[in-house]
Amino acid sequence: MDKRYVIKIGGNIIDDPPGLQKFLQQFSIVPGKKILVHGGGKLATRLADALHVPQQLIDGRRITDAETLRIVTMVYAGLINKEIVASLQALGCRTMGICGADADLIRAHKRTAMIDYGFAGDVDLINKKAIEHFFQEQDALVVAPITHNGKGQLLNTNADTIARELAMALCREYDTSLIYCFEKNGVLRIPEDDRSVIPYITPASYPMLIQEKENDRPVISAGMIPKLENAVRAVKSGLQQVIIGKSDALDALINGQKGTTIRND
Amino acid sequence: MDKRYVIKIGGNIIDDPPGLQKFLQQFSIVPGKKILVHGGGKLATRLADALHVPQQLIDGRRITDAETLRIVTMVYAGLINKEIVASLQALGCRTMGICGADADLIRAHKRTAMIDYGFAGDVDLINKKAIEHFFQEQDALVVAPITHNGKGQLLNTNADTIARELAMALCREYDTSLIYCFEKNGVLRIPEDDRSVIPYITPASYPMLIQEKENDRPVISAGMIPKLENAVRAVKSGLQQVIIGKSDALDALINGQKGTTIRND
Repeated sequence: MDKRYVIKIGGNIIDDPPGLQKFLQQFSIVPGKKILVHGGGKLATRLADALHVPQQLIDGRRITDAETLRIVTMVYAGLINKEIVASLQALGCRTMGICGADADLIRAHKRTAMIDYGFAGDVDLINKKAIEHFFQEQDALVVAPITHNGKGQLLNTNADTIARELAMALCREYDTSLIYCFEKNGVLRIPEDDRSVIPYITPASYPMLIQEKENDRPVISAGMIPKLENAVRAVKSGLQQVIIGKSDALDALINGQKGTTIRND
Repeated sequence: MDKRYVIKIGGNIIDDPPGLQKFLQQFSIVPGKKILVHGGGKLATRLADALHVPQQLIDGRRITDAETLRIVTMVYAGLINKEIVASLQALGCRTMGICGADADLIRAHKRTAMIDYGFAGDVDLINKKAIEHFFQEQDALVVAPITHNGKGQLLNTNADTIARELAMALCREYDTSLIYCFEKNGVLRIPEDDRSVIPYITPASYPMLIQEKENDRPVISAGMIPKLENAVRAVKSGLQQVIIGKSDALDALINGQKGTTIRND
C-alpha cells in the first residue's frame, strides 16, 4: 500500500516564522504525497482587532459572523496559504494551495446547533478524485480550512476536523498517517514533564489509560481527551495511524521515534 | 483547433456584487475551457486604509511594499478568489481558484526599474502543462494576480499582463480569445458616446486609426493606446483575437456582436 501523510499544523507554528520555515523544510522532504492542513494563528484575531470586528467565542469556539468569515478567508486561504505554497516551491516541493471550495474539494453544511456558530461548516464530503488528480502532478497539497456548501456560501471549518476527514477519505486505498503537530512532545503522562511522552496508545489500551491516575491526578488531562477520542475512533474506523507531537521533529514523529502514535496493534 | 477563453475583469465588476453575479452566470455557460483573471477592486485600498498602511501610487501604479503585498495577497488570492470560486461551483461550473505560486503556474521576477515598485512582479514563465492538467478535471480556472519568483517570494502582478501572458501561452495550440472587460462598450470613436464602438481593428488598420482625428481630436484617446498597443502586438505574435468591451454582455462580446475585436483579418 502506497503511503499518504496528512499533517496538521496550528497557530503555534504559523505564528513563529523561523519555526515554520524549519517545519516546511522537513515537510518538503517527507517522501511521497502529502497534505498540509493549516490553521490561522493570531493573525486573524489581530486583523479583526484592527478592523474593529469584535470576536465572539463560545466554549473556545469562534463565532463566524459575515465579517469574520471574510477575515478568515483572507488570512487562511489568502496570506497564510500562499506564503506556505511559495516557501514550499522554493524548497523544490511541487505544491498546490487550495481551500475546500477549489475543485469542490470539501463540501460542508452550515452548522445547526443550539448555539448559532454563524458561518461555521461541518464537513459532508471529501472529493477524493480531485486529490488523486492533483497528486498526478504535485507532491503536496496545502489546505486552508475554508469549505463551501455547493450553493455559493464559504464556511469556516475546524482544521483538525478537515485533516481527519482527509485522512479518513484516503485510508481505504493508502497507508495513511494523520499527524497532529502541537506545542507538546506528545500525549504526556505528567503534563509538566515534556519527557513523559506516552509513545503508544491502542484502542484496547485507551479505556484503561483514561482511568489511570498518578499522584491522584488522571494521567490523561481533560484537554487531551477530545483529541484522543477522535484519534481512537479514526483508528477504529480504519485509519492506519494517528501521531501527535511537536512540529520541530517531523521525521522523528513519522518514524515513531518521537510523539505519541495511536494505532490498532 | 479547440477554443480557449482568457477573460479579465477589473475593479468595476468586483465592486458591484449583483453585476459580478450576472457576469459569473454568463461566464459559467461559456462553452469549453476558460480562465478568469481578476483584479482586486477597492477592497484592497479600503483594507489598507483600515490598517493604516499608506498606499503610494506612482503614475497610477501601486507601490507594493511588504505590508501592501500581504494585503493584496489576502484580498486577491483569498477573499475575492474564493468568493468567485464558490459562486461558480454553485452555478455548476467545475472551478479551481489559483494564484501564480500554486502549481508553479506563473513565475515572475521583482521588477527592476528606476522607480522602486517594491514587490511588483514581471512575468517570466507560464506553466502551460499545469493549465492543461487542471483542465482535465475543471471547466474554469480563476487566477488571482499574485505570482512568485520560485525563491519563496510572492509578487504583486498586473492582472492585464497575466491575462495576456496566459493567452499567449495557449494560442499556439488553441484558438484563444483574450477578453478584457472594462467599464465601456468597447474602443469608442467618440469617448462620450457609448454607441460609437469601433467594432473591428486589425494590425493593418491600427496605425491609420491612431492618426485619425474627429473634430480636431484623436479618435483613439490617450488612455486606450497602451491597451490597444498590447492587443495589436499580441495578435501580431499569434494570438487569435483580443476583445475589449463591457462585462454585462459576455456572450455578445464572444460572438462579435458587441465590443471591439482586434484580430489579423
